[in-house]
Amino acid sequence: MERTRCRRDFVKLSAAVGAPLALGLSPVPVAGLARKDQEDPSFFDVVRTRRSVRSFEPTPVPEDHLLQILDAARMAPTSGNQQPWKFLVVREPELIERLKERCVEMSLEYRRSQGTTVTPEMEVSVRENLEGGYFSAPAYIVILTDNESRYPTYNHWDGPMAAGYLMLAARALGYGTVFITDSIPDQVTKEVLEIPDQYTRVCITPLGVPTAWPESPEKKALGEFVVYDRF
Amino acid sequence: MERTRCRRDFVKLSAAVGAPLALGLSPVPVAGLARKDQEDPSFFDVVRTRRSVRSFEPTPVPEDHLLQILDAARMAPTSGNQQPWKFLVVREPELIERLKERCVEMSLEYRRSQGTTVTPEMEVSVRENLEGGYFSAPAYIVILTDNESRYPTYNHWDGPMAAGYLMLAARALGYGTVFITDSIPDQVTKEVLEIPDQYTRVCITPLGVPTAWPESPEKKALGEFVVYDRF
Repeated sequence: MERTRCRRDFVKLSAAVGAPLALGLSPVPVAGLARKDQEDPSFFDVVRTRRSVRSFEPTPVPEDHLLQILDAARMAPTSGNQQPWKFLVVREPELIERLKERCVEMSLEYRRSQGTTVTPEMEVSVRENLEGGYFSAPAYIVILTDNESRYPTYNHWDGPMAAGYLMLAARALGYGTVFITDSIPDQVTKEVLEIPDQYTRVCITPLGVPTAWPESPEKKALGEFVVYDRF
Repeated sequence: MERTRCRRDFVKLSAAVGAPLALGLSPVPVAGLARKDQEDPSFFDVVRTRRSVRSFEPTPVPEDHLLQILDAARMAPTSGNQQPWKFLVVREPELIERLKERCVEMSLEYRRSQGTTVTPEMEVSVRENLEGGYFSAPAYIVILTDNESRYPTYNHWDGPMAAGYLMLAARALGYGTVFITDSIPDQVTKEVLEIPDQYTRVCITPLGVPTAWPESPEKKALGEFVVYDRF
């Protein structure tokens, strides 16, 4: 519980510090520039400049970009080539609104359960934070794995790898994403989007043009991760 | 059990059909060609041309390439910026030999447990298959997450994403990898490499120049993965 609370604080902090940063990649492809530098950026540039994005412009994501992103996601490594993924693309404004309202309700319920008296002002504030934050994107993708895939006990590896690919591909085309679990709970997407029990959610991510590309949070040095030959 | 057996068959089949394929990317950087097309290939080319590689040249992986690959892996999305990864790089020939011999023993034990009489010829064949296959690489990376990280219940997402990044980055520099779980069992890497209980293995991958870039196994059509708005 303590850990979960810490993580909530981190997420709030991250949402607050989204300072713009010149990343060396254009946020969306710009007409008149060579395709090479726009829709086909270098691999290491994409890896270096992907960020967790928590505030979006309303600009729609063109269908061809959406499909190029999903097409990259399905190229992820997969156990025995089982390809157990489903990508649920949510763009209907009414559905996005319902997801948001369920998140508002759950946030207020959580506060009440912690002994807080929820005021109308508090409700407005929670809603506005979600509207300007996680729920400001024009599209959402729920990444799922199929429990009836060929080797379902391997899905817990295949699922996150496709999510990682998807987020990189979005960045390559100028879109922001963020791997959301707690902030839009599994139960909310399941209810509102009528996801069958057959599928396990990996995460949900918004997809859209960032209002700004945030700076990277501070990272550990490479040397802290590497061990040679044995422990 | 039946599923596991099917998967073993698939892995064997995949290892057998490694036909060469012109991928449009050079297998290793070649002197005299522009850096842009060699060490800095396009994102979508890398995604499109990554393969599961199961046979390698003995050519060593230079330290700067190894570090560039690990540096990309640590850029993966991570819950609350916790970065729970360890990358155990194995290059000592004696350790690789011990990993291989333990896999030979386990493979023969498995056959005996299935009622097969293990002959000396069978043992030679198992060893040769491993020597020319999974154990032909000059380096191995065990991808681990730290159970004592800040948010360990999120490690099952963070771990595979770093593995996905690592395998793409290797491909970007011309190296093959393959996400191995069963074929080099967790218990084998744990024993031989003295991995503390504090770490959970995601997978082990060989890292090296492929003897050939295999063709992609047949993939489902994109449309089979995509659902719009709700189920």
